[in-house]
Amino acid sequence: MSDRDDSDGDNEYCDWEDGGGDNGDEDDVFQDVHVMIFVGFGFLMTFLKKYGFSGVGFNLFLAALGLQWGTVVQGLLHDNGKAFTIGIKSMINADFSTATVLISFGALLGKTSPIQMLVMTILEIAVFAANEYLVTEIFQASDTGASMTIHAFGAYFGLAVSGILYRPGLQHEHKNEESVYHSDLFAMIGTLFLWIFWPSFNSAIAETEEKQYRAILNTYLSLATCVIIAYAFSSLVERRGRLDMVHIQNATLAGGVAVGSCADMNIHPFAAMTIGSISGIISVLGYKFLHPLLANKLKIKDTCGVHNLHGLPGVFGGLASILMIYLEKSDVSTMAMQAAALGSSIGSAVGGGLVTGLILKLPIWNQPHDEDCYNDSVYWKVNLWIYCWVHCCISSLPAAGYLDAYTA
Amino acid sequence: MSDRDDSDGDNEYCDWEDGGGDNGDEDDVFQDVHVMIFVGFGFLMTFLKKYGFSGVGFNLFLAALGLQWGTVVQGLLHDNGKAFTIGIKSMINADFSTATVLISFGALLGKTSPIQMLVMTILEIAVFAANEYLVTEIFQASDTGASMTIHAFGAYFGLAVSGILYRPGLQHEHKNEESVYHSDLFAMIGTLFLWIFWPSFNSAIAETEEKQYRAILNTYLSLATCVIIAYAFSSLVERRGRLDMVHIQNATLAGGVAVGSCADMNIHPFAAMTIGSISGIISVLGYKFLHPLLANKLKIKDTCGVHNLHGLPGVFGGLASILMIYLEKSDVSTMAMQAAALGSSIGSAVGGGLVTGLILKLPIWNQPHDEDCYNDSVYWKVNLWIYCWVHCCISSLPAAGYLDAYTA
Amino acid sequence: MSDRDDSDGDNEYCDWEDGGGDNGDEDDVFQDVHVMIFVGFGFLMTFLKKYGFSGVGFNLFLAALGLQWGTVVQGLLHDNGKAFTIGIKSMINADFSTATVLISFGALLGKTSPIQMLVMTILEIAVFAANEYLVTEIFQASDTGASMTIHAFGAYFGLAVSGILYRPGLQHEHKNEESVYHSDLFAMIGTLFLWIFWPSFNSAIAETEEKQYRAILNTYLSLATCVIIAYAFSSLVERRGRLDMVHIQNATLAGGVAVGSCADMNIHPFAAMTIGSISGIISVLGYKFLHPLLANKLKIKDTCGVHNLHGLPGVFGGLASILMIYLEKSDVSTMAMQAAALGSSIGSAVGGGLVTGLILKLPIWNQPHDEDCYNDSVYWKVNLWIYCWVHCCISSLPAAGYLDAYTA
Repeated sequence: MSDRDDSDGDNEYCDWEDGGGDNGDEDDVFQDVHVMIFVGFGFLMTFLKKYGFSGVGFNLFLAALGLQWGTVVQGLLHDNGKAFTIGIKSMINADFSTATVLISFGALLGKTSPIQMLVMTILEIAVFAANEYLVTEIFQASDTGASMTIHAFGAYFGLAVSGILYRPGLQHEHKNEESVYHSDLFAMIGTLFLWIFWPSFNSAIAETEEKQYRAILNTYLSLATCVIIAYAFSSLVERRGRLDMVHIQNATLAGGVAVGSCADMNIHPFAAMTIGSISGIISVLGYKFLHPLLANKLKIKDTCGVHNLHGLPGVFGGLASILMIYLEKSDVSTMAMQAAALGSSIGSAVGGGLVTGLILKLPIWNQPHDEDCYNDSVYWKVNLWIYCWVHCCISSLPAAGYLDAYTA
Repeated sequence: MSDRDDSDGDNEYCDWEDGGGDNGDEDDVFQDVHVMIFVGFGFLMTFLKKYGFSGVGFNLFLAALGLQWGTVVQGLLHDNGKAFTIGIKSMINADFSTATVLISFGALLGKTSPIQMLVMTILEIAVFAANEYLVTEIFQASDTGASMTIHAFGAYFGLAVSGILYRPGLQHEHKNEESVYHSDLFAMIGTLFLWIFWPSFNSAIAETEEKQYRAILNTYLSLATCVIIAYAFSSLVERRGRLDMVHIQNATLAGGVAVGSCADMNIHPFAAMTIGSISGIISVLGYKFLHPLLANKLKIKDTCGVHNLHGLPGVFGGLASILMIYLEKSDVSTMAMQAAALGSSIGSAVGGGLVTGLILKLPIWNQPHDEDCYNDSVYWKVNLWIYCWVHCCISSLPAAGYLDAYTA
Repeated sequence: MSDRDDSDGDNEYCDWEDGGGDNGDEDDVFQDVHVMIFVGFGFLMTFLKKYGFSGVGFNLFLAALGLQWGTVVQGLLHDNGKAFTIGIKSMINADFSTATVLISFGALLGKTSPIQMLVMTILEIAVFAANEYLVTEIFQASDTGASMTIHAFGAYFGLAVSGILYRPGLQHEHKNEESVYHSDLFAMIGTLFLWIFWPSFNSAIAETEEKQYRAILNTYLSLATCVIIAYAFSSLVERRGRLDMVHIQNATLAGGVAVGSCADMNIHPFAAMTIGSISGIISVLGYKFLHPLLANKLKIKDTCGVHNLHGLPGVFGGLASILMIYLEKSDVSTMAMQAAALGSSIGSAVGGGLVTGLILKLPIWNQPHDEDCYNDSVYWKVNLWIYCWVHCCISSLPAAGYLDAYTA
């Protein structure tokens, strides 16, 4: 990159980051994270029977918006409002800030308008950038995989907004708030791509190559253990030992969330595996017991259950990192800073979420009526009646004798 | 690679390209492009309710065929018919020539037989290779992301073939030419993987590492802006502000097409974003207003609307590259060469497409009857009646009281 | 990595492998293989109409389990039971041992309980590791892409288990043992990701960079040819020239299996293409003619047809590698060792499979009843009746006039 010409020096407000000779690897991590953001989060949110277009579609819209806004906000913050650089590193960071918004979007899925989500994106990324600056620059806390700054933050921000936007009409089970067979399979596309590329997410901003390597392996071990535990507990808590797709789609990923804060620390493989196991338990139990409680008692409806996938495991990840620092016999101030990071992440999330929720409650954002919730046809051209290939059903009716054999 | 043995020197007609020490990165780009060709294009073409097998299945067939034929044609052309090399670089180029065929296939989707498509693949790749040779070797034009040589070429080639193969029986809306809910979700798999890996496509053949880096970032910015604009305009042009899945699946990618020609140029980030915005507008408006016009007035049916995703944004990309060269104060001859490249791409596409269309019109290629168009069951074993899980419907009929609640 | 601190020296039972400066590329291959294991195998097994949750869900469970168990077994074996290292290399190997289990799982899909599969995972990986040790360390055979040690082994292990578990009640076509339109499209997701990343699989453990490069290209050529041949033969053997989705989903991958053993050898491109062609023919003919024979005469039911995708092409790949060694004029002992590797792989697979089958036949593993086979609702919470969106069908009935046009 030595022969780089300087003619782009005349860009006043932004400049290219120096690509360096090794942008190959960085670019790979960048695209891995991209797959998670667009395919992973996108398809994970297609599980509702009539809200698949919005799940994957608004995810794409918010991610593309968040990427650009995140680049600007972080550029302004880190370079004191002067000209800032654009490069793969800043774009990975922008991807990260976008993840926060998509987590909060999961809590609100089906109950808000795209305009409301657009406003939330703008506000949330600003708060996120401020908190992230605080955590990394002031507290100098360790949060490579962002258990606290992204996962816990995104979840509690979304829950706070959801609490403010609570509507009694949605308290009882909504007729559209359920999955069908194939929508659950679409969601599994999201789960699997998130699972596979999570090691890249947790190692993307590790400082040295060794830390990056460690972050990959720790994340990997934590995730693998988490899957086994999530299956076991899903079977344990359900009647007749049946597995619940909600647990499989979500709780299997909790290990990636929880190991984030200490991913690049020099911890024992069994420590990573323990973190994965505990987070799997927390997540399944959260979905089974805490989720309905949250909805009925605290009046916080959390459509995708982000509290159980990102919130609780994120907080647990923060606590685990404090423990690991304690075990490494670091001084108390490091532990205090780590605790401050956790507190600041949750605090700013709840605070920012409450304010954002109040703004989104203004009757100017075109929020859908109760009966229109979880329904694509409000925002998308959908020929509802051909939802199912009725013509086949009807044309097959005469073959009723043949059908009997198929009556399950 | 210094210890490479020479025993393969006895391969008379083809030889391995030197892998070099850095084939790791090249191999990644190669597989990114592969994901676009096989998963991206493949699933993008599953949007029709009864033509999903053919969309993704014939895409696989034509891509595998095009890859091999493209390797041979380019080998012969660039090495004057003597022994040629096979390597990752030549395979990326083969992938590129395949992309042209798949774009043209999109225009003809559902109306032609696999044999017709096989013949088109053979002919189109030959014409493509000739035009590409002209553009890169003779005109020395800049077209790293191939807005002109792949996208505009592929689109106009396909449209020319489609015009020649026009059949009055298909003029009016065909009963099978529509999507259903889940076929649109399958198509989104294609859209997202194309979107994510487009930066790799546009940077794959950039000459220096710096240019590659720039191509990645420019493509990225153009795509991100394009998404926002495509959503905005889709909502603007549709009744009651609803989004159209066709626009979201396609127009969100126009930014990648349009920025191709100047992807590796040293342009300002805002220039890339402007290109993305304009291409998003062009594409949505094309789908809304030009698409029906093309079908009704010019008698050119374009099943996937490749004219709006590849044709118009490709031409716009070529024009934008001429403007950028002008702004860089390069001499007039460079601009003229760029213009010649654009002209040659469209000219050879239309010419080649017309001839190919006439050949495909011969009544020996087993073209499907009008009523069999857009229907997998002509070419695939499909149990039509279990298209929809009728047995469930029927067995659920007694539970009609429960069903009332679900009547949307 | 020179500044690596030694504080992890206190891990008694396992240690981090040295990441080295080039872990970037290794990590990419690792994640490519991961995509194949989790998304590729997972979605390939969603083709049954009512067994998609189990296909992709149990695949995730078994893969996560196999990864950990494989790491332990291989660690113990290669380091004589002492402390062993964990690193990306050992994890690629663990991924490989997992692939064996997933292949065997394919043969048994729908007929066994998760507990049975868990037991099989434990046993099969142990046998696999022993055979792999024999093949690579004792016989020093060439099997980079593991045609013999993974594909043939996994297939014959699964077939042996399936033969022992044979139940007369499943001999005739089971009502749930069939695909529906969209389940076949989900399976294509698996096929395409397997196809795209197969070159990474076959080159992952190649020793030198040159061999890796060769393995990528050979695999690639073999796969591309195999697709063309598989389409041609599928059309040839079916009535009225129609393609069978089973062939397209599976036989198109046989070229990757078969070229495995000699992927990194210095063979002529046409040799790789010939291997791909022959394996495509073998696989399609196997599905068409051998598959029903196996079920009816030998009483071995092979749900996914792994014998035709992994078994036969794997054996053919082993034989091809012996021929290639012969053509390279290596001494006879090398050929003998290669033949011993093939024999040992099949022998240990059949032996291990028979013993495993007998263990799984014990009436303590909760095997599903005949009528519950191929049915998710035994193990998963499924609202069967909303399998199909009945509410739409019913609500559309009054619009019957409109429907007539859609009666195919």
